[in-house]
Amino acid sequence: MLKEILQNVKKTKPLVHNITNYVTVKDCANIVLACGGSPIMADEEEEVEEITTLCGGLNINIGTLNRRTISSMINAGKESNKLGHPVVLDPVGVGASSLRMETANKLIEQVYFSVIKGNISEIKTLAIGSGTSYGVDADIKDEVTDITMETTIKFAKEFAKKTNSIIVITGPIDIIANKDTAYCISNGTQLMSKITGAGCQLSALITAYVISNPDNMLLATVAAVCAMGIAGENAEKRLKNSEGNATFSNYIIDEIFKLTGTELDKLAQYGKY
Amino acid sequence: MLKEILQNVKKTKPLVHNITNYVTVKDCANIVLACGGSPIMADEEEEVEEITTLCGGLNINIGTLNRRTISSMINAGKESNKLGHPVVLDPVGVGASSLRMETANKLIEQVYFSVIKGNISEIKTLAIGSGTSYGVDADIKDEVTDITMETTIKFAKEFAKKTNSIIVITGPIDIIANKDTAYCISNGTQLMSKITGAGCQLSALITAYVISNPDNMLLATVAAVCAMGIAGENAEKRLKNSEGNATFSNYIIDEIFKLTGTELDKLAQYGKY
Amino acid sequence: MLKEILQNVKKTKPLVHNITNYVTVKDCANIVLACGGSPIMADEEEEVEEITTLCGGLNINIGTLNRRTISSMINAGKESNKLGHPVVLDPVGVGASSLRMETANKLIEQVYFSVIKGNISEIKTLAIGSGTSYGVDADIKDEVTDITMETTIKFAKEFAKKTNSIIVITGPIDIIANKDTAYCISNGTQLMSKITGAGCQLSALITAYVISNPDNMLLATVAAVCAMGIAGENAEKRLKNSEGNATFSNYIIDEIFKLTGTELDKLAQYGKY
Repeated sequence: MLKEILQNVKKTKPLVHNITNYVTVKDCANIVLACGGSPIMADEEEEVEEITTLCGGLNINIGTLNRRTISSMINAGKESNKLGHPVVLDPVGVGASSLRMETANKLIEQVYFSVIKGNISEIKTLAIGSGTSYGVDADIKDEVTDITMETTIKFAKEFAKKTNSIIVITGPIDIIANKDTAYCISNGTQLMSKITGAGCQLSALITAYVISNPDNMLLATVAAVCAMGIAGENAEKRLKNSEGNATFSNYIIDEIFKLTGTELDKLAQYGKY
Repeated sequence: MLKEILQNVKKTKPLVHNITNYVTVKDCANIVLACGGSPIMADEEEEVEEITTLCGGLNINIGTLNRRTISSMINAGKESNKLGHPVVLDPVGVGASSLRMETANKLIEQVYFSVIKGNISEIKTLAIGSGTSYGVDADIKDEVTDITMETTIKFAKEFAKKTNSIIVITGPIDIIANKDTAYCISNGTQLMSKITGAGCQLSALITAYVISNPDNMLLATVAAVCAMGIAGENAEKRLKNSEGNATFSNYIIDEIFKLTGTELDKLAQYGKY
Repeated sequence: MLKEILQNVKKTKPLVHNITNYVTVKDCANIVLACGGSPIMADEEEEVEEITTLCGGLNINIGTLNRRTISSMINAGKESNKLGHPVVLDPVGVGASSLRMETANKLIEQVYFSVIKGNISEIKTLAIGSGTSYGVDADIKDEVTDITMETTIKFAKEFAKKTNSIIVITGPIDIIANKDTAYCISNGTQLMSKITGAGCQLSALITAYVISNPDNMLLATVAAVCAMGIAGENAEKRLKNSEGNATFSNYIIDEIFKLTGTELDKLAQYGKY
């Protein structure tokens, strides 16, 4: 089932417009190429609407935002909406500053997002303004455990209802929900928190997946999240004792490059709630 | 013959000023180091003229351009011209927006470029305003094949005559031409299109090569394009089944680092037309 | 002795605010993660004070500076000072332009730095306005040798006295000094000059180390410099003939990831002067 979703990406080679931070931007480009898509990065106000018109969808990531790029995000988002393209939001570190908070709120008000993806602290901050924040990482106090999972699923569905978006909450257990249905995913590995950009790459990957699967965006998002988790697991298996987090970071992209639809179906660990 | 060109780079350690995009910038720096040069990245209007004065040449890449960096490109380019330094233009995605088109045109009007390097869609857009564009990649409709090669060589020579620049058209067959002479190069591998930045790195490499070989820029450009292609071939040979595009990307830089003049002479596949 | 310093970093997981260049920024993030800390990159004037408040310290790197980020550096630095956080300065290529020189001077005037780290040309330029410059690299004429070491130690202590900062001069022999005490470190390898960003990464690493060791910043700086040098040595040992500078660059971060306190104590080569 996820197999066809992955294969649709390889078949349709989605062109993904990314307005993203300068920290992990190369890895975002390489993961889009790895999955079979084609990335373009452009954040200048004067060109983003035109660029987005050429593309199949837009990935907005607010890490290292600035006044210039904020306008670009909003304009590109509106244009994408007009064209009926899917738009994905990654509210990196939204709880870390008022500027990020205001920007994320403004984006959600003015742009319709097909998918909003963050860690639990980021999504809580967006939804109820009260998530705590440890820089760009989830706060340990917010972490989703087996005990809190049911509450979190309910919360995700409610926020999905309010925004009409697919909500992705990443963590040891990932939750993906629209207003009616939620999926929980247990793929992935702890080591992914020791590299920069796993989350940013996931958002770029989700964008490619939903562009190529417009009639089934919820499951396309599930497929992308499973793919990223499996890539992390496979990368960790491949990691020798002599290797560390920089090598691991490259291996994750390699694994997305190699991942087939059959393997995705076989290794994906997800349940419907 | 290409051997001496490569060795001149190692001997003279050219200092290369790069005004380039934030996606592939680290790889541009590392490839300049790999070939024996020294990179400096600087794009602030107030300092680019001074920085370029210290250097031997300038590499201008319009990917992720913005209003601030456009002025810097023009000013640095003019200053480089005054100093008699070679300047290289990489018109990344020039067909993808009016801003990129206007910027590239303005640059070509106001700055003299020793080398202009792009894929066939980018060079067609520059030359006749009618190349199609698939984001930052060449459009399949524009691709140079054995059938269209003769026409493309003629086109490259004409554009070289008009601009008085060396024109590099990258693709499965790379074409390098001044107004009188063209070279076709068949080094390289398809896999290079599955990583971000191979083209950006090539422009940085060309800049280093032409700085160190001022009296023979055409052949220096041929040498750089062959070196990049060979690096891709060697990187692919080295690639294990367990590895993917991120590892491949690092291997390309590694191979430029290791490449000797003797190997370059032995492995270069080029013909004069 | 250095062992406890490294272990304090792993124990306290320092949150490091980085205002740094877009060339080596990902590696700076990954090295902070590798050593046990957590990085956040943010350079927009409107948010840097808030971001820095969340963090334990600030790393300012002037490579690819621009008007917008210069204001952010100053404001974030002042706020960090108010909060009593350590601030580290990396004056990349300070001799390469008046803008970098003015910016570094303004920063030193308006912000108190716990540590100032540069190559010998950069520190000379800061201290006496007369270092020569070869782009972002140290000029060969400035290089510290056994013959000039004593003079350089004296010079470092004097500049430390003037600024009340810990001064780090990197090179084949690294010198770390406050006004009274200097350490010389002979860890490291020549190959580190063939990758971009070893210096930038070191500054990020020092920031993490001094945040986690507030009562012993001099020795924390020594530990960070030794760790980086050892990582370079170990990375070089691990490097196969088939590998080059891009792979080496990843291995350095890997080695910081793997380095234990016991190994640091065993492999550190430093002397007090």
